[in-house]
This record gives sequence, C-alpha cells and structure tokens, in this order.
Amino acid sequence: MQKCFQYLMYGRYTQELGVYAKVEAARLRDGEVRDGSGLRRNTSVRSRAADLLEYEKDPCAKCQVCASRCQKFLISRVGEDWIFLILLGLLMALVSWVMDYAIAFCQEAQKWMHGGLDSNLLLQYIAWVTYPVVLITFSAGFTQILAPQAVGSGIPEMKTILRGVVLKEYLTFKTFVAKVIGLTCALGSGMPLGKEGPFVHVASLCAALLSKFMAALFGGSYMNELRNTEMLSAACAVGVGCCFAAPIGGVLFSIEVTSTFFAVRNYWRGFFAATFSAFIFRVLAVLNQEEDTITALFKTRFRLDFPFDLQELPAFAILGVACGFGGALFVYLNRLIVECMRKQKTINKFLLRKRLVYPALVTLLVSTLTFPPGLGQFMAGQLTQHESLVALFDNRTWCRQGVAEEFDYISHHHAWKHPQVNLFITLILFIIMKFWMSAVATTMPVPCGAFMPVFLIGAGFGRLVGEIMAVMFPDGIQVDGTVYPIVPGGYAVVGAAALSGAVTHTVSTAVIVFELTGQISHILPVMIAVILANAVAQALQPSLYDSIIRIKKLPYLPELGMGHHEKYNIRVEDIMVRDVRYITLNSSYRDLQEMLLTGQLRTLALVESRDSMILLGSIERLQLQSLLSQQLGRQRRLEYLRQLAQDNGNQDHLPSLTTDSSPSSACSFAALNTSTNVRPAQTLDDQSKIIRSIILKGLFVCFWPLFPLQISEWEEQQLDEPVEFKNCKIDPAPFQLVEQTSLHKTHTIFSLLGLDHAYVTSMGRLVGVVSLKELRKAIEGSVTVTGVKVRPPLASFRDSGNSTNVSEVTELHKLCIRHRGLSYISMHQNHPKHTNS
Amino acid sequence: MQKCFQYLMYGRYTQELGVYAKVEAARLRDGEVRDGSGLRRNTSVRSRAADLLEYEKDPCAKCQVCASRCQKFLISRVGEDWIFLILLGLLMALVSWVMDYAIAFCQEAQKWMHGGLDSNLLLQYIAWVTYPVVLITFSAGFTQILAPQAVGSGIPEMKTILRGVVLKEYLTFKTFVAKVIGLTCALGSGMPLGKEGPFVHVASLCAALLSKFMAALFGGSYMNELRNTEMLSAACAVGVGCCFAAPIGGVLFSIEVTSTFFAVRNYWRGFFAATFSAFIFRVLAVLNQEEDTITALFKTRFRLDFPFDLQELPAFAILGVACGFGGALFVYLNRLIVECMRKQKTINKFLLRKRLVYPALVTLLVSTLTFPPGLGQFMAGQLTQHESLVALFDNRTWCRQGVAEEFDYISHHHAWKHPQVNLFITLILFIIMKFWMSAVATTMPVPCGAFMPVFLIGAGFGRLVGEIMAVMFPDGIQVDGTVYPIVPGGYAVVGAAALSGAVTHTVSTAVIVFELTGQISHILPVMIAVILANAVAQALQPSLYDSIIRIKKLPYLPELGMGHHEKYNIRVEDIMVRDVRYITLNSSYRDLQEMLLTGQLRTLALVESRDSMILLGSIERLQLQSLLSQQLGRQRRLEYLRQLAQDNGNQDHLPSLTTDSSPSSACSFAALNTSTNVRPAQTLDDQSKIIRSIILKGLFVCFWPLFPLQISEWEEQQLDEPVEFKNCKIDPAPFQLVEQTSLHKTHTIFSLLGLDHAYVTSMGRLVGVVSLKELRKAIEGSVTVTGVKVRPPLASFRDSGNSTNVSEVTELHKLCIRHRGLSYISMHQNHPKHTNS
Repeated sequence: MQKCFQYLMYGRYTQELGVYAKVEAARLRDGEVRDGSGLRRNTSVRSRAADLLEYEKDPCAKCQVCASRCQKFLISRVGEDWIFLILLGLLMALVSWVMDYAIAFCQEAQKWMHGGLDSNLLLQYIAWVTYPVVLITFSAGFTQILAPQAVGSGIPEMKTILRGVVLKEYLTFKTFVAKVIGLTCALGSGMPLGKEGPFVHVASLCAALLSKFMAALFGGSYMNELRNTEMLSAACAVGVGCCFAAPIGGVLFSIEVTSTFFAVRNYWRGFFAATFSAFIFRVLAVLNQEEDTITALFKTRFRLDFPFDLQELPAFAILGVACGFGGALFVYLNRLIVECMRKQKTINKFLLRKRLVYPALVTLLVSTLTFPPGLGQFMAGQLTQHESLVALFDNRTWCRQGVAEEFDYISHHHAWKHPQVNLFITLILFIIMKFWMSAVATTMPVPCGAFMPVFLIGAGFGRLVGEIMAVMFPDGIQVDGTVYPIVPGGYAVVGAAALSGAVTHTVSTAVIVFELTGQISHILPVMIAVILANAVAQALQPSLYDSIIRIKKLPYLPELGMGHHEKYNIRVEDIMVRDVRYITLNSSYRDLQEMLLTGQLRTLALVESRDSMILLGSIERLQLQSLLSQQLGRQRRLEYLRQLAQDNGNQDHLPSLTTDSSPSSACSFAALNTSTNVRPAQTLDDQSKIIRSIILKGLFVCFWPLFPLQISEWEEQQLDEPVEFKNCKIDPAPFQLVEQTSLHKTHTIFSLLGLDHAYVTSMGRLVGVVSLKELRKAIEGSVTVTGVKVRPPLASFRDSGNSTNVSEVTELHKLCIRHRGLSYISMHQNHPKHTNS
Repeated sequence: MQKCFQYLMYGRYTQELGVYAKVEAARLRDGEVRDGSGLRRNTSVRSRAADLLEYEKDPCAKCQVCASRCQKFLISRVGEDWIFLILLGLLMALVSWVMDYAIAFCQEAQKWMHGGLDSNLLLQYIAWVTYPVVLITFSAGFTQILAPQAVGSGIPEMKTILRGVVLKEYLTFKTFVAKVIGLTCALGSGMPLGKEGPFVHVASLCAALLSKFMAALFGGSYMNELRNTEMLSAACAVGVGCCFAAPIGGVLFSIEVTSTFFAVRNYWRGFFAATFSAFIFRVLAVLNQEEDTITALFKTRFRLDFPFDLQELPAFAILGVACGFGGALFVYLNRLIVECMRKQKTINKFLLRKRLVYPALVTLLVSTLTFPPGLGQFMAGQLTQHESLVALFDNRTWCRQGVAEEFDYISHHHAWKHPQVNLFITLILFIIMKFWMSAVATTMPVPCGAFMPVFLIGAGFGRLVGEIMAVMFPDGIQVDGTVYPIVPGGYAVVGAAALSGAVTHTVSTAVIVFELTGQISHILPVMIAVILANAVAQALQPSLYDSIIRIKKLPYLPELGMGHHEKYNIRVEDIMVRDVRYITLNSSYRDLQEMLLTGQLRTLALVESRDSMILLGSIERLQLQSLLSQQLGRQRRLEYLRQLAQDNGNQDHLPSLTTDSSPSSACSFAALNTSTNVRPAQTLDDQSKIIRSIILKGLFVCFWPLFPLQISEWEEQQLDEPVEFKNCKIDPAPFQLVEQTSLHKTHTIFSLLGLDHAYVTSMGRLVGVVSLKELRKAIEGSVTVTGVKVRPPLASFRDSGNSTNVSEVTELHKLCIRHRGLSYISMHQNHPKHTNS
C-alpha cells in the first residue's frame, strides 16, 4: 500500500497533471495556504519582524535595470510619503464630501415625498416606510453580491489587520465600491447608523488601493509591506478626520481603537493626513457656498466667560457614570441580538437563505416606529441625525420651571416640542427608542457604524440631564451678583462624548467633541465624564469593536484585561504545545516527507539532533517542499533514468525525454508535491481521479512505468539519504521563550513584535511551541478553566532567591554529562594513544 | 607574581577586611555596579524584559506573613493605581499652584520696588537688576549644593529614564526640593525661563517619591519597577497638565517627548491623572477668588462665527514655515552657546571654579537690557511672561493703516505702545531680543525650561505677522457684504503653537494652545502651521531635548532619522563586538576567575563548548562571582583545613575556627572577591593597603599562613575543577540577533524591548554581541565614517531568492559534519561490536 501510494505520488506525472499542479502551486505561492494555526482560510498571520525585513529589501529587487532610480526613491521616500498622504487626504475628503452630499440628497428626497403626500396618511406612511426599506435592501443586496466583507463598521477588521494579520479581501477595490455605495444608501435611508467606523475602513481601502496604484506606476517603496501598514494606520486617522472634520480627535481615536503599541515616529503621518483631509473636506463646503468659512461641523455658541460652575460638576460626574453603564448595556445588547439570531436555528436558517429579509424587516420596524404622524411625533422622528444633534447642542434652555419655554421655532426645535406631551417624555422616549433601535440597526448586514447613533443618544441623555438641572435650579447660578443660567446644551455635549467613549472604550471622544462643536470651554466636565464612563464601561463589558471581533472570531490577540492577575500565574509551559514538529540536521528525506504529510504548520523547527534537541533555527514549509522536490525532481530522475538506460542499453528512448524539458513539466512535480503535502486527505483522491482520466485518454507518455521496480527502489534510496540543507533558507534566530515565562510577558512580547509563534526552549533545547492560537485560548480563559495549573504568584524565571528550578538543573546536568561524555569520547578519539597507555 | 596575587586574594582575610568587604558587597548589591558598557557611573541600563519579570514577582516575596494581604493587593492593584494617580494629581496641583503664587509674589515685589523708586533712576536700575541677580544666584547656588541634577529642564533625563536607563539621583527627595525651590526663584526673577520642562521632572520626582512612600507604608505592588515606570510616564503628563491646565495636550506632549513606542493601555492613566491635576489646579484658583469659575489660563475671545478666512491660510502657512526655521535656529543657538563655553578653555576653567558667576553675569546682562526706562521701553520690558502673552493673544488689532490705534489702555497694552517708536519696531525688537536672551538664559545652571519663552516669542512673531496682515488688508475680508477684520491675536496663537512645536518637535503644542486659550476655532491654521513648522525644523535640527541629550551625553538610543536610508545597509556584523566573553559548560573555575578579572561585562554568555559555541544562555556576573566564592569559600577552606590538620595532627587549633562562624566573616570572602572583580585596577592597591594596616595593628589571626604551600596547592587544585552550574541562575533565553540583521531592525527591537545587549548567533553558534553602546555609535555615524562596509540595499537575512548566504552555508556544513562526526562516534561507542565485526 505504501509503495502503491508512492508510485502514485512520484511514479506518474504527465503534462496535464502538471498543469493542474502548476495552478495549484501558484495558488499556494500567492499565500492562500491554509495554515493549521486555527485561522480561517485565506488569512495568514505575518509577523511584524518579517515585515520589517521586507522593508529592508531592495524595493526593486525584481527589476535589475532601474537600480539607480530605486536608490533615488529610497532617499526621497519621505517626500513620497508626503505626496501619498496628500493624495490620500484629498481623495478621502472628496469621498466624504460627495457621500455627505448624496446622503443629504436622499434625506431631502424622503422629506419631500413625506411632505408632498400629507393629504393621505396611508400614502404618506407607505412612502415613509418604503423609501428606507428599498435603500437598505439595495445596500444589503449590493454588498452581499459584490463584497460581503464590506458589511459592518470595519474597525474590528482594521484592528486585526494592523495587528499583523492579513485579511486579504478586506482591502480590495470591490470592497471599496461596495462599502462606499452601500454606506451611502444605508445612511441615506435615515436609519440610526453611523458613518465613522465604515469611514475608517474606506480610508484604509483607499490607502491600500492607492499604494497598489502607486506601486504599479512608480514601483519603489510603494511595494513595501511595512510602509503600507504605516500608511494604513495613517488612513484610519484620515477616516475619522474627514468624517467629522476632526483631525486631532481622529488621530487619537484611531490610535486608541486600532493599536496596542504605538510608534510615536508615525504620529506625524496621521496628523498631517488627517489635517489635510479635514481641511479639504471643509474647504469643499465653503466652495459649495454651504458655509462662509471653515468652522466646526456642529458649531455651538456657549458663553465663553462662564461655561459652567463648580457646583455643576457632580451632575457631570453622575452623567459620566450613567453613560458608562449605558455604554456597557449597548455593547451587551448588540451582542445579545447577534447571538440570539445565531442560536435560534430556525431563524438562522431562514435568514441565511433570505439574506435580505432581516434588514428589510428591521428597517420596516424602525421606520414604522419613527413615522412622524405616529409614534414619531413623540420622539422627534422626522429629524435626521444631523438635525437632532444641532438641536440637542443648542445653547438655549428648552424647559424652565417644568414648563417648556416658548422658544422661537427656528431650525428644528419644534420637533421636540409636542403640544400635548411634556418635553421630558419626548426626550426619554427618544433615548429609549433610539437606544434599542441603534443596537438592532447596527446588526444589519449593511456597511454601517455605531458611533454616530451612540453619540446622538448620549447627546439626548445629556440634554435630559441638563434640562432636569435647569428645572432644579431655575434661577441658575449666582456668582458675584451675576446670574448664570444652566446651559443644557453643555450637558448634551458631555453626554455625547461620555456615551460614545464608553461604547468604544476611548478617551479621545472628548477631543472629537471639541472639534465637532468648535468649543473647548467644557473641557473639564467632558474629561471627567469621559474618564468615569470609561472606567465603568471597561469594568463591565469589552468595547464594541472587541465584542465584534469576538463575534466574528477574527484572529486577534485580545488584551489582557485590567485586574486579571491570575494571568501572572499561568506560564508558557501550561499552554505550550509539547509535540513540536521538528527536523534534525541528520534527518533523511523520508523524515521530511512524513513531516510534511502529517503536519500542517507553516514553519518547522530545525534542531541539532534528536538527542540534543538544540534549536538551530526554523525553516519554512515551502523551503522544505522545494528541498524534497529537488531530491526527487525531474532532473535527478532523468539522470538516474539515463544511467539506468545506459546500463540496460536502451539509449534510444532518451533524447526525446531530455529535449522535452519544458518548464511546465519541470516544475509540475514540485507543484504536485506541494499540493499533496498541503491537503493530504484530498489529494490522493484527486490524483487518482486525474490519473484515471489520463489513462482513459491514452495520454500515457511517461517513461517511468518502464522500470517500475527499479524506480521505486531508487525512490526509496533517495528518501533514505540525509537532507542536504545547503540550498535551504533557514531563519537562524526564531523567537524563543522559556517554560517559565508568564502569560503576561508572552502576551506583551507577542503584541510588541507581532509574532505568530515562538519556540519554547530550555537551555537551548527545544521543548515546545506557542502560537497565537494557544495564547488566545489561554487569555480567553478556556484553558484556565479546563486544565491549567494555577501557580503561586512567584512564577518567574529569574527568581530573586538562589534556588534554581529543579527541572532546569536536571536538564543542565544532563547537558553537562552528555557534553562531557562527548568531549571525553572525542578526546579519546583524538588521543587514542593516551587512552591505551 | 600570580601566586603572590592569589595569596593576597584568597590567603588572608580577617574580621576587619570582612567588614569592609561586606559594605562593598552591599553597595554592589544595591545596583551601583559600575558597568563597563560605556555608561557613566551609577547608571545602569535595565532591560524592559527584566522589569516585566519583576512585575510578575510576588510583591511581598520577602515577607512571608502577609501573603494573603498581598493577594488582595494584587487583585485591587487597579484600585491602587487610581488612588495613586489621584494623590499624584492632588500633590502636583498644589505644588503648581503654590509655586505660581510664589512666583507672582516675587514679581509683584520687583514691580513694587521698581515703582517705589521712580524718583532716582540709578536706584531704580540697581533695584531692577539686583533683584533677579540675587534670585538667580541663589537658585544656582542652592541647586548646586543640594542636587546638581535639578539643573535644567529635566525632560531629556526623563526621556532617558523612560527608555529604561536608571539615573538614580535624578529621582531623589533632595532633587525634588532643589528643583522646586530653585525653579520658584528662577521664575520669580522674571528671566525668560519656562516652567513646563522642570514641571515634568518635578511630577516624575513626585511620582517616584510617592511610590517609595507608598511602598514603605503598604508594600505590595508599589515596589514594582515596571509599575513605577508606568506611573512615571503618567507623571510626565501630569507635569504638563497641571502647569498649563491642559490635560489632553499634556498627555500628548509627554507621549511625544518621552516615548518611542507607546503602550495604548497606559493611556488612561495619563488622562486621568492629568485631568484630575488640572482640575484641582484650576479649582484652587477659583477657591482663592482669582477666577469666577474654571476657565482657560490665557482665555481668548476671538469671534466664533468667522474665526478666519480661507484667503488668510497662505499667511498662516508662511508663518508656520518661518517658525520652523526659527525653531531650528533656536536649538542651534542654544547648542552653540553651550559648546562655545565648553571649548573656550579659559572661560570653562573660570566658570567651573566660580559656578555662580555665569548665571549672575547672564542675569545682569538680560535685566540691564530689559530695564524699562532704558532699552526695555522699546520691547515691553516691564511685562512678565504672563502679561505679555495675555496682551499678544488680545483679539483687538493694535495697528491699522500703519498707525497704531488709540486702543484703551486697560491691562498691559500700553507697554507695547511707545509714543515715539512704531509698534512694529517694538515687536521686532521684542522678538529678536527675547530670542537670543531665551537661548542664553536657558543655558544657566538653574532649574528652567525653554518651552514658555519660545511660546512667547512665537506669539510675538505671530502678532507681528498678524499686524502686518491687518495693515495690508485694512478693510478686512468681505464675505456676503459683512466685513470681517483680520484678528492678529489669532496669528499670535498660531505662531506660539508653531514655534514651540518646532523647537520641541511635537504636534501636540496645537492641543496645548487650544487648552491654554480655551478656544479651538483656529484649529486648521494652527494644525497647518504646526505641521509645516515641524517638517522644516525636523529636517534641520534635532529637537531641543535631543540636543540636550547629546550635549549631556546621556545614555539614550537616538532615533533613526527620517531619510537616513543608509542605515538599512549597515548590518549587525558590521557593528558587533566579535570578542565575546563566554564560559563553556566545561569551563574550570580558573577560566571563570580569569573571565571575571579581565572583563567588566554584567552578563556573560554560556556556550556548550569552545568548539560548538552553541549559545545556551547568559549568566549574570554576580552569579558567577558567588559560584567562585562558593568554590573557594570559607566553608570549603575550613573543611580542607580540618582535613589537613587531621593529617598533620594539630587538631587543637580548630575549635576556635569553627566556632568563629559569624556571618560577617563568612560572607567577607565572597564580598571581597566580588569587589575585586569589579574593580581589578584599584582593588589590588586597596587590599594591600588594608592588609598592611592589619599587619601593623597585629590583628593577624588567620590560620592560613600556617600552611602556605599546601593552601596555594589546594587553591590551584580547586581552580582546576570544572564549574558546577547547579546552583547558578541562568537566563535560558537571552535575546538573539543574526549577523545579517540590519541596523534598522536592530534599532527597532532594542527600542521596543528596551534591550541592553543582544547576542549575535549564527545557526545557534555565538559569534558576537551588540550592546547599546555599539548601536548608538553606529547610529550617530561615527562607525559609518570610520570603517563600516556599506552594503547594497539587498541586505536582508531572508532574501526572496533562493541563494543562501555563503557564510551561513559554510557554517551549517561545518555543523552538519561535526554533528555527523559525533553521532558516528557515539554510534561506534554504542555498538562496539558492530564496528569490530
């Protein structure tokens, strides 16, 4: 059976099989290797170290002609960066502005329809409901067909990508188109959806595509991976920056949301690009005569001389804490909805079949509830998000002494003032309805974010608290004879920052709110509320983005939470995989073959010998595959065949063979070999099928079957030879940990260096391997629960005392004995006379 | 000679010598080891990895009693953090406020003196000049006597400390007192000095002292090193935050100025502490009835609806570029002055002898030039920094149509309006004089920063540009019929942010300026100017802090500058030290002794054998010293002596020896040994001196001289034994690089992990070592110039092609051969029959 299998594997290969294998090999070379580390297909973790290496490569290695031009490029790389960032900023500002324009147009159209049909309530209702349903359904369908990766906010994916994981389809042109058009439709529908998250993704897409375009045009450093990652992190800042015209907040928000460790030297990129983008975005508004000059997006006009009193600070603090609980509840609710959908098998099945039903139903529900002549009249249903925010940030008090003031009905304040219903009931209804609606709406499979809806809810909540304060202190605050009334708009600003900060676990929403309103006078209340909201929310729930990462099971290394000090007691030896795949210096090709057939790891460890287990380096799977194929490749077979033929005397067959050295057939064997090793289960079937078809077609032109016995003998012999590592690329310094390294340290090192796996060594001896998968499991607690020994807190490999770890000592001892034994032997070998005498 | 030396070393030890050695050992244990890696005395680089390890240690390892309490502490560590940060914020706010109060009092006193003596110009001049001279001289003398480390801004030192270098005296109570009092006097003198930089240092001091205090009170995690580092970085934010009441800007500025890679998870600490501190700082002002409520420090009142026009943006951009050049010039000038002082040997000698003369002279010069009835009247000499800034940020135009307006002389505007002299001349004189005065004044040996003076000069320059614009466009800007006049105050804000940004190479000055003025309406001009200023300044000069780091020769790893792409062509093998000190598994104690006597490295590499050179780990010097002392220690000597005595029959001497096993004499040998190895040059002299004194005193009680010959023989024999590594702590996974690693990657890894040194291995074989020193040299270019081979850009150890590096192949080959040879041998040994047959 074993022989038969080998016969199938190496014995027969034809032109056609070769073509198939070549395609397969190309696929593999393109990086679509299914690696066995628990990641989904088409994702492969790249270590940052590897990226760094590529950074150092000659950018134009392939093209030898333009070496001097490359040199110039290298020197002027910073200049390129500037150009790239300007282009990126310009593009994104244009996209943002055009999208805003289209969204405003959509919303105007809905209003016009709604206004034009006010004679008939049913018609009005149908128009009000149909419009968003059609838009959302189109958006969902369009993204589903073109690029399902465009669904959702995109920040979790960007976080994962910036961690070093390659999620290929997330940065394609298709996704860009799907995201932009889908987002425009989704936002145009007037549903409680946000623009910020998707815009981070759009900007990253834009940067990735621009990089590709520039690389195609100019080559050079645009082809570098690390540079592209740096540009991606700048792009995230641009996304937020040009969405809100908030460059500083954008940079900080993108850092907080996407990074674990931030390289300060990349700081200026984000600032520059975001500022430029925000500038162009606002200039476009000026050029379009929407604005007189560049000002903030939601400009407030709070008084500057006395923005708030010290006595109001407790109210701001309470607002912050309440927003913290609210934020945690929002994240929980959002996750609950998704999990409910998944668990209910019947719903799940139905939704999977009819993907457009769910968004349509949700939209129908939400738009029915906000129908202005219906329930909508009690919750400012006819206002868009922008209009609501402008109203909520208004610096006038809506309500005094419990009765709503007769404020002049400019802009959209009338929506909040129902003739029969108290203002407070309107506000409370607005908050509660928007809360669950936003939580539900953001689960729809359309490109959408949750930042803006949450921001709006926070503003509403803040306004509610502010109005309550205004009622409680109707005379305002008296300081030195001057009366300063309470400004509920200030509370709205604080609430917006606090709730969005709580949901996203960021502090920079404070900065975003300053840039959005154009006023910084409420800095202290905002900072206090945001910090308190963060403290509460972080203690209760993960951030919305981390929650989505968990739901989507993205290959991201979770943060070590605050207060999880039991992590210090878990060591690497508790989580490592002890059954490491390795090859030794004197492995035979047979060992290699077995290793490749049984394991699926992307890299294999190279140790000195099975006894010493001293780690020398690591070799990539592809390298080993090429070694194996060289050993059993066409060239060597031909040589052997020629010799065999010479021996047997049938020299006449051979010229045809040697001339038939077309590259396709030459590499086919290697490719077949490769594909075989990657998919051991399928390939046997595949191959036999293909070979059967070949037999049927009578294309059996190979010479191998002429000498079946000799050839299998030759193969056996070849496989028994020790591996020649001469032409193999070895990574001579893979990252090493020791068994006693704690989980905390391992996590830090993996995050810092963007590692994929690390070998665990003990005195130079390989004892295990830890990959991202094990680490993630350990952090998420699944390992802790099932079988990890929890150690005393003294778990450190460099204890202060002098007592050495027992196992370490034993191993060192072994090593010493072994070594002395060897040196004794070699001494005896070198001085045979001495021993004899 | 060798024998004689050993005799001295091991032969004689007495009680008194033991005491001396014990003290010496304690000193060494305290970490004040002079390491040989080129750092100054009392500084030792700690790797971040080592800190991480300590983080994981049982916080209460020493005290076994309170184990359960410790557990509680661990769990509530986050709670502790909050408490600590609140305390820190509170303390710093108090310090800042009291200091401001004292400074204001000093300045009032000077004004009062100056005002009271207006009858006599000479008396007035003497009073005006004497006051600052006395204050500055006192400040310089006080810091000189108490703690010379308090001199200067402190940001460069904090940058170095946060990089992982321990600069011990920089964080003591003495330094704190010297810095606070010295700074108050220096600022009270009215010289152009700043508060920000020193405040970063004061806050760090405060955090360090508070940590010590808390550790003494509660123990627990307060004793942890990594935690303290995290707190230091939060403290830097607090320093800026409570100095300017700018929490967000404070956090960002401290990150930009002190960090290379920033851990986002530490972000909230800085925000929380800085916000709390700024809050308390401003609350104190309210409580003291200085303010009605919490507002910005330099509140501006620019119009909100139309802060600036698009047509003004080119002027802002030009202002930014000019500030960039100005900032670079300032840094250059500052360095030039220091270097001139140093180079002029006569001046240098004189200044070193009379340290107080230089500050006194500089103060005399500056205060003479600013004397209000003299030159001072043309440059607003009588105004303090605070008053000048308030005036410069004023939202009125001072000058229209070339003639100064008759603006009402509230506050301090009259100082800018000289009856005979044009406003522009006053402004230009102000800028030029302040420019060089600030550059000179910041070189004085007093605690002082340069941020505020630079900020003021920038504001002056901005005001100048603004006034010129106002003259050029006397009718302002007409939009839709409304006339908006130019606001020169806005230009002052932009100029202040741009110049301070250029000098410090930070973008966050933009945020600081918003928080200082309480208005964010000029966000786009500020951002544009700051980014342009940074781009220009970074291309021309290092930042002021990096410049000071170079001048002071602090052990900091410089940044890889932008555009220095030749760094990619330098590899580790070009800079590494090939002559690595190592010990092998079968080293004898004599090898160990020689290694310790000749080298001065803190850690030694452990390799398998001299032939294989396979790196197994690294051992700390202290460990080896204790190994050596165990081998030749008192216990073993006594045993040997007893045996010797038994053999010789004089058993009667021994009881006195064995009972005299006081710990002091027991450990004295070890300690002596230790001190000897650390300072091989001095110790011989020291020892012989001490021994001579002992001989004179007749305290010669040791028994060793009774058997001089046997004992030296015994010592020789002991030294020839192979080292027993059983009781020795080995770091089994020191950080490894390969020869082909580029300088760029090495730099990144050293920065990320805070490494001190890394071993260079090739296929597991130790070939070299790179320490911070070599890396620094290589980056600073000294190596590049003298002898580094510059490689083609294809210098990467994982080339894309299949061609392996020649040296690697050769070594692998060697290894294979050697290994196969060994296995062949062992095979022969295992199967002797097989070979014989």
